[in-house]
Amino acid sequence: MRLVSKDLLGIEKLTREEIELILETAQKLHEIHSRDIKKVPTLRGKTVVNLFFEGSTRTRTSFEIAAKRLSADTINFSASSSSLSKSETLIDTARSIGAMLPDVIVVRHNQAGTPEMLSRMVKSSVVNAGDGAHEHPSQALLDLLTVKEKKGRFEGLKVAIVGDIAASRVARSNIYGFTKMGAEVRVAGPPTMLPPHIEQLGCKAYTNVREAVVDADVIMMLRIQMERHSKLLFPSIREYSRLYCLTPEILDLAKENAVIMHPGPINRDVEISSEIADGPYSVILEQVTNGVAVRMAILYLLAGQRSN
Amino acid sequence: MRLVSKDLLGIEKLTREEIELILETAQKLHEIHSRDIKKVPTLRGKTVVNLFFEGSTRTRTSFEIAAKRLSADTINFSASSSSLSKSETLIDTARSIGAMLPDVIVVRHNQAGTPEMLSRMVKSSVVNAGDGAHEHPSQALLDLLTVKEKKGRFEGLKVAIVGDIAASRVARSNIYGFTKMGAEVRVAGPPTMLPPHIEQLGCKAYTNVREAVVDADVIMMLRIQMERHSKLLFPSIREYSRLYCLTPEILDLAKENAVIMHPGPINRDVEISSEIADGPYSVILEQVTNGVAVRMAILYLLAGQRSN
Amino acid sequence: MRLVSKDLLGIEKLTREEIELILETAQKLHEIHSRDIKKVPTLRGKTVVNLFFEGSTRTRTSFEIAAKRLSADTINFSASSSSLSKSETLIDTARSIGAMLPDVIVVRHNQAGTPEMLSRMVKSSVVNAGDGAHEHPSQALLDLLTVKEKKGRFEGLKVAIVGDIAASRVARSNIYGFTKMGAEVRVAGPPTMLPPHIEQLGCKAYTNVREAVVDADVIMMLRIQMERHSKLLFPSIREYSRLYCLTPEILDLAKENAVIMHPGPINRDVEISSEIADGPYSVILEQVTNGVAVRMAILYLLAGQRSN
Repeated sequence: MRLVSKDLLGIEKLTREEIELILETAQKLHEIHSRDIKKVPTLRGKTVVNLFFEGSTRTRTSFEIAAKRLSADTINFSASSSSLSKSETLIDTARSIGAMLPDVIVVRHNQAGTPEMLSRMVKSSVVNAGDGAHEHPSQALLDLLTVKEKKGRFEGLKVAIVGDIAASRVARSNIYGFTKMGAEVRVAGPPTMLPPHIEQLGCKAYTNVREAVVDADVIMMLRIQMERHSKLLFPSIREYSRLYCLTPEILDLAKENAVIMHPGPINRDVEISSEIADGPYSVILEQVTNGVAVRMAILYLLAGQRSN
Repeated sequence: MRLVSKDLLGIEKLTREEIELILETAQKLHEIHSRDIKKVPTLRGKTVVNLFFEGSTRTRTSFEIAAKRLSADTINFSASSSSLSKSETLIDTARSIGAMLPDVIVVRHNQAGTPEMLSRMVKSSVVNAGDGAHEHPSQALLDLLTVKEKKGRFEGLKVAIVGDIAASRVARSNIYGFTKMGAEVRVAGPPTMLPPHIEQLGCKAYTNVREAVVDADVIMMLRIQMERHSKLLFPSIREYSRLYCLTPEILDLAKENAVIMHPGPINRDVEISSEIADGPYSVILEQVTNGVAVRMAILYLLAGQRSN
Repeated sequence: MRLVSKDLLGIEKLTREEIELILETAQKLHEIHSRDIKKVPTLRGKTVVNLFFEGSTRTRTSFEIAAKRLSADTINFSASSSSLSKSETLIDTARSIGAMLPDVIVVRHNQAGTPEMLSRMVKSSVVNAGDGAHEHPSQALLDLLTVKEKKGRFEGLKVAIVGDIAASRVARSNIYGFTKMGAEVRVAGPPTMLPPHIEQLGCKAYTNVREAVVDADVIMMLRIQMERHSKLLFPSIREYSRLYCLTPEILDLAKENAVIMHPGPINRDVEISSEIADGPYSVILEQVTNGVAVRMAILYLLAGQRSN
């Protein structure tokens, strides 16, 4: 089985079978991590360009390690947005990169839709590494992989996603992903952080985190972009944290053995108490480890298998 | 046949035979791009340092992809110029990099002559990736390769180069290159952008772009560094564009099937109308693709062949 | 024989035998530099992350070249310190990097103790590439290697280290290193630059550089961080240089054939006269070359040998 598209632009467009394929491939590739030589020659001679218009060393590093473990060549292209006409620069940059004939372009941009536009302009496979508040599919896939490993299934799981839902591409991609896999998704956040029609994506919205978390199997806390807009959307960090921080008391409402997730980096005691972040139910570091495996799977399925 | 010098500092110092050697080597290496595994082991164990004192992600990326397709190791060294004594830092940095014994140093610097100074201080081969308003030889070689592919010859071709001739290392390198290969070169730009003795390089200078373009086989539009000095050299961008932008009307003066070139990134509708940039005669993206092949040839001829 | 620790955090913790092992390994690996293919497959499939919280392109480049000559994959992670809570970002970043399972993390940070903290949080081997004013072990090891090559022994050598002793991690690591190897170490600098209890490290302290240099076999001049604190610690650069710059006249007090060292980059005629820096006794560039060999030895001993 193969992915239908040459690109991975979002979870919305994937079928359940494609998601399962990526997760199974990641689980197989995961085994490479435990070897002494953590490398396979699968993508030898393939070129992966990391085209990041937004700084994100962690995601870029994860993709770079994934590519190198598959023996691909990697090129980092950090584009600044300092020129006069940003959109022209983007089109021009994208076409130029495409003309250098890389096999995969991993792109992050603060404007939703950029990866899709890019995918129409180049022959390379395009992987969306986060576009505005739209999608961040590799993050959702690593979250799915982590839940699959911990719970063994998705069907019937209750997944609570808490924080700035409206601004979060992680939330959107995970809503698509978990609902497609048969889980029940609830989102919770301050009214100012809940987009108006979010329930149309198949989830249930709450302003009270306690209601969202009752009987949850999975709790995913989102990062608050404190530097960006916190002041506009709620009175203060203290206020946010008092209402929405994941504390032991709130965690008690969830199922026993609920899995605690966070895409990182954490604002300790803002979104999640240190006690829980470092506690036995937190899978935050497993998410990071799974991130490399999932990105290996994505690169392999797009660049390794399609050219056969 | 081999290149005479251990370095590639400019087109001015190359013989016609050396240029032909580079272009032929590039054409052979070009074939690698169409393979599934775009990689040959020719430079395995060689180290290429990209030493960029001026930001240029596109050129750096092109050299990096070229080096990796030849299996060389690449190191990016972006030197800031923030220290007290810039020239001392440069000398010191250059010597230190040289003492790490790389095989090739690709250098870009905003001061003309830096690559030559560097070449005297290190045993490594030095490739000039652009020095001030002096030379940008790999750009001219990729332009020559593109014209060779499109026209099959240089002898007797009329080549018009239009824009800020005085500030353009691309113009200088191309004037040297095309005249050596037997083409007739015309340059055109506002009087403030034409250096006084430019015709001594063997070209003819025009202030009227229409005259320069008449019967041209090749039209090369230069990038206007709008952020840098446009205000000093002409009244406004609008004024420049009204007089020097390549429009369909001006293009009509050239030969049918004239080849349209631009080193990128383009300022659309300033130097060149979008219609033409994206039209059938534009070879702008082929230039980018050829850039990788030409840089592979340069690295191969300097680091792969000389050590035999 | 192997290194006892999984990490290289400082010279203070190494035994004399471990230092000898590193130097001998470096001398063996040094031979690779003279080959046409400067690469061995020793660390194929290993991942080395360069985690630099402080800019240092030279040290990073040296580690990167060292890793690539051993066929390791390298990832550069330059962490800015722009976030709200720096210490949290560091812990979070370190754990995340660790969760990507690299074999070695090379870390530089402006706070002493950061590499040690990191080493307790990750399974990877941690190499200290400079932490505040604490240690810079790979620098001391390359200095030791250079002296070993030039003098053939350490026992009984007189080593003078001159400059801002208090702020210098290079000085501290070298004091530990040379005294462990049986040399006599003298440090010299303005009273404001001599830490109060420095002699407890086993060296003798002088405020008069002439006394420190008498009969010296090795003179190591430290870099003055002019941008940082020079104004606080002495009246002017001119004043510092008049008293502490290594001139031919001062050099005359040392042994004939004294070896002149500097960790670079040099402030010419501030710490050392150009005449001496470029003269026959200067081994400054050999230090840089040896830096690659020593870092290859460190990476090999931590990542190549321990996993057997």
